[in-house]
Amino acid sequence: MSRTLDAQALRRRVASLLVVRASGHAGDRQRRYPRWELANAELKRLLESGVGGVILLGGSSVELRQRCLQLQNWAKGPLLLCADVEEGVGQRFEGATWLVPPMALARLHANDPERAEALAEQFGRCTGRQARHCGLNWVLAPIVDVNNNPANPVINVRAWGDDPDTVTRLTLAFQKGVEQENVLACAKHFPGHGDTAEDSHLQLPVIPHTRERLEQLELAPFRASIAAGIDSVMTAHLQIPSLDPDRPATLSKAVLNDLLRDQLGFQGLVVTDALVMEAIRAHHSAGDAALLAFEAGADLILMPEDADAAITAICDGLRSGRIPRERLDASVERRQRALAKVAEASECETGALELERQDERALSEALLQLTCERQGPQLHPLGAAQGINLIRIDGVLACPQLPATAPGLKQPEQAGFRALITHPGALSIWETNHPDAPLALDRLGAGPVLLQLFLRGNPFRAGREQQEPWEAALGQLQAAERLAGLVVYGSPYAWESLRARLAPSIPAAYSPGQMPEAQALVLSGLISNQGAEAAEPDGPGEGFTD
Amino acid sequence: MSRTLDAQALRRRVASLLVVRASGHAGDRQRRYPRWELANAELKRLLESGVGGVILLGGSSVELRQRCLQLQNWAKGPLLLCADVEEGVGQRFEGATWLVPPMALARLHANDPERAEALAEQFGRCTGRQARHCGLNWVLAPIVDVNNNPANPVINVRAWGDDPDTVTRLTLAFQKGVEQENVLACAKHFPGHGDTAEDSHLQLPVIPHTRERLEQLELAPFRASIAAGIDSVMTAHLQIPSLDPDRPATLSKAVLNDLLRDQLGFQGLVVTDALVMEAIRAHHSAGDAALLAFEAGADLILMPEDADAAITAICDGLRSGRIPRERLDASVERRQRALAKVAEASECETGALELERQDERALSEALLQLTCERQGPQLHPLGAAQGINLIRIDGVLACPQLPATAPGLKQPEQAGFRALITHPGALSIWETNHPDAPLALDRLGAGPVLLQLFLRGNPFRAGREQQEPWEAALGQLQAAERLAGLVVYGSPYAWESLRARLAPSIPAAYSPGQMPEAQALVLSGLISNQGAEAAEPDGPGEGFTD
Repeated sequence: MSRTLDAQALRRRVASLLVVRASGHAGDRQRRYPRWELANAELKRLLESGVGGVILLGGSSVELRQRCLQLQNWAKGPLLLCADVEEGVGQRFEGATWLVPPMALARLHANDPERAEALAEQFGRCTGRQARHCGLNWVLAPIVDVNNNPANPVINVRAWGDDPDTVTRLTLAFQKGVEQENVLACAKHFPGHGDTAEDSHLQLPVIPHTRERLEQLELAPFRASIAAGIDSVMTAHLQIPSLDPDRPATLSKAVLNDLLRDQLGFQGLVVTDALVMEAIRAHHSAGDAALLAFEAGADLILMPEDADAAITAICDGLRSGRIPRERLDASVERRQRALAKVAEASECETGALELERQDERALSEALLQLTCERQGPQLHPLGAAQGINLIRIDGVLACPQLPATAPGLKQPEQAGFRALITHPGALSIWETNHPDAPLALDRLGAGPVLLQLFLRGNPFRAGREQQEPWEAALGQLQAAERLAGLVVYGSPYAWESLRARLAPSIPAAYSPGQMPEAQALVLSGLISNQGAEAAEPDGPGEGFTD
Repeated sequence: MSRTLDAQALRRRVASLLVVRASGHAGDRQRRYPRWELANAELKRLLESGVGGVILLGGSSVELRQRCLQLQNWAKGPLLLCADVEEGVGQRFEGATWLVPPMALARLHANDPERAEALAEQFGRCTGRQARHCGLNWVLAPIVDVNNNPANPVINVRAWGDDPDTVTRLTLAFQKGVEQENVLACAKHFPGHGDTAEDSHLQLPVIPHTRERLEQLELAPFRASIAAGIDSVMTAHLQIPSLDPDRPATLSKAVLNDLLRDQLGFQGLVVTDALVMEAIRAHHSAGDAALLAFEAGADLILMPEDADAAITAICDGLRSGRIPRERLDASVERRQRALAKVAEASECETGALELERQDERALSEALLQLTCERQGPQLHPLGAAQGINLIRIDGVLACPQLPATAPGLKQPEQAGFRALITHPGALSIWETNHPDAPLALDRLGAGPVLLQLFLRGNPFRAGREQQEPWEAALGQLQAAERLAGLVVYGSPYAWESLRARLAPSIPAAYSPGQMPEAQALVLSGLISNQGAEAAEPDGPGEGFTD
């Protein structure tokens, strides 16, 4: 019995070292990354069983505040509540201040170092104050990596510069700003992620540098940050043979214990980067990854793939004597010390929902003013509207019908159909000169076409959708033997008129609803299971952050 | 002195009849439709000065609850708080339940009327309960228009059917459901908006029907709704010569007073449709429209173009004797009676942020299940990914960098450049066979090209953006004399490499930030004012609802 109690107490202590991922939104169905963000029932169970930290993303600052109160309410003790707000809280939570990427200040620093450092400190204060106001107590910034590789696909403009001196000066100023606001900061990614050409979200990069080179370049900002009393350091998922030929930094005793603790003398919290990233996940089970990281010297385990497995693996390691109990005590103690430092309740004016202060708005504008550039003459407006404003952007999908995880995208993808989205702001799919064959088939590329039409006569479009020749397009695709299927969401009139033009052999479906649930329902009926790849519902490289 | 006091008291009483528009979001900068949604300082001033109602749109259910508390806090007396939640609260506020468009139930009603009516009542209960929980006390539904024109660009699937009997039965059930939840309902749009081929958001439709035909078709559901005790009726912006040869229904004494009050015997609140819609706004000043509507018999003035002008015009009309004081007393009295009916405070469990109940989720799913359709065989997955999932949708812009109101869209539009957005889910702009001329210029259409590149090495894209041949594209556009300008947002590396390829005559600019403020700043510098159209910042037909 006492052994059972001991086992439970041990699990709670180990659980307190986990930082799990949740959406900043209130509802399960609002999650943007449901594969990575725990559902509320599961989150509540884990917090009740002692899990001690949550990393949040998504939603607005008003929601985040309510959400943090809820999470704190579910947990028995104080929580570490953090977010990747490297560019201000507005980078992740709508309604807060969204600042320029840190690299912008590095360019400014070259011309006016004092001003750049003063702005970096304000950057930190703005981020810290707003984080605190929303209920967070831990800012996962600054990135102290020296981005000396312009092709770096993951650090890049998130870094505070491409030389160690600039990075050191600016990040020290930022760190000072955050700490003035009674919020924990975090230097990342140890021992330095600036010189990678691979994205560790997708694979494990290898850094071939010697210890001497690391000392001169990558480690310098960490040394300075530690000397200035940074609260936490985040590990990098990098293979660095000169430090450890076998293990990536996150799982390496040589890196975390020998280098970071012993040689650099860091006494604060060591937190792993997210263990669900492919650089770790592809090579280690959920339990193993957590155990190896803890054994190597990490205090906190961020985003384990399976929280229960992580707790069990670490408990087993402690019980078997593989890891001494003192390691656990030390990590728990460090966590409590960090929490105690930021324990004061934040002031909260009710009725004041608007988060951003005047000085924060001014900072945001000053940073933009100081960092933008221009060359050549001004552009003169055209007499009549005839120009093209061609915009290239990574993704545009945040309309409520089609979030990036919409069944209308995902289910066809699993059946072999890549998404091609047409809308009034996109390249035209129409050949204007061919009324009977209006689709510009050459632009679509080869292959069968599954047509999904969201049509419902929305206001303010001046009947635009009724001018699109979908009936003729349906005939054209069938004549070309390229119509794989048709789905109409919304208008029963459009559905009736289009279905009448279909050969009986064409799969087709309709729902009056346009929301993701309608898509899931209709497509599950439309697409057969035969021949479907036995893929995971989301591919392994699926994103979990912006 | 007493006259001044009287004047102030009169203004307050008149102001109580206004319903102004606000965003459901907390911050001014979060507004999706800043032209139509009051800024917080202005909103606070108007509520403090007696404005008695707010119509809300946008944000999440958690934010909406906080927002309603804030608005109620700013006002001295109880407010009417309403929203166009015709398809469940989730249609307008994220996190709440989003139900199928009402027309879906009409189709079900043809086969199983009892079931359809039971579902319509649950539809009303779900909408009413969630509205109440979020802090609203007035649901601007049901639409009782009979949609007997499939080309109707504004009512369409929002209607509960295309014959008067179906509409009557279903909307009575919905109305019953809403009222059970202690929330006011609203039958709209009087005397019937179902047979229009024009969008009254953009122009004033004319209905040529005789009084007899209106009696048989359009008026039937209104009669039933009034007999069942509907709390409010919303007017339509329609010209109906058989009822009033001079004035649209919203401004017509013949329609509102003689027909609705006297002949149909309606005793509840008459509210105008939004006065900012072009059907009214194009023909009347802000003050005149409000005065005419009030004089015609409306109790509440929804979305006046200028609240102060509306109050002044109505006060002048009352003081001059043009409108008897009893009209004001009667409207104020009706408003107070309606508020008293829903005055009980709603229960609020703290910590329970998730709005949707199990039965509401089940209702949402049942409606989808019962209303979807399918024909033909199932679609079989392709062996390898080679098909195209072509999706047509009105708009996709809700990414934080590019909201529909982004300067990156609007400022070039004013200078004559229409937006063309390219992203990984869009039609390709590239010719794969021409490394030196990689852009498929024929797909872009004619005209000069302003290129705006959002490039910043985001994670999870596996360096995709670095494979896009923007350097060659820049050369190609210059050789073709089609490059009007270049803007880079984000990566300084991309900016440096691209600017080096520009002729000195090409306007170009850069900002490390990608947010709307960065666009506004850079484009204001880039685009000269010479030759710009003297257009309003937003065109007159700009949307103000989804």
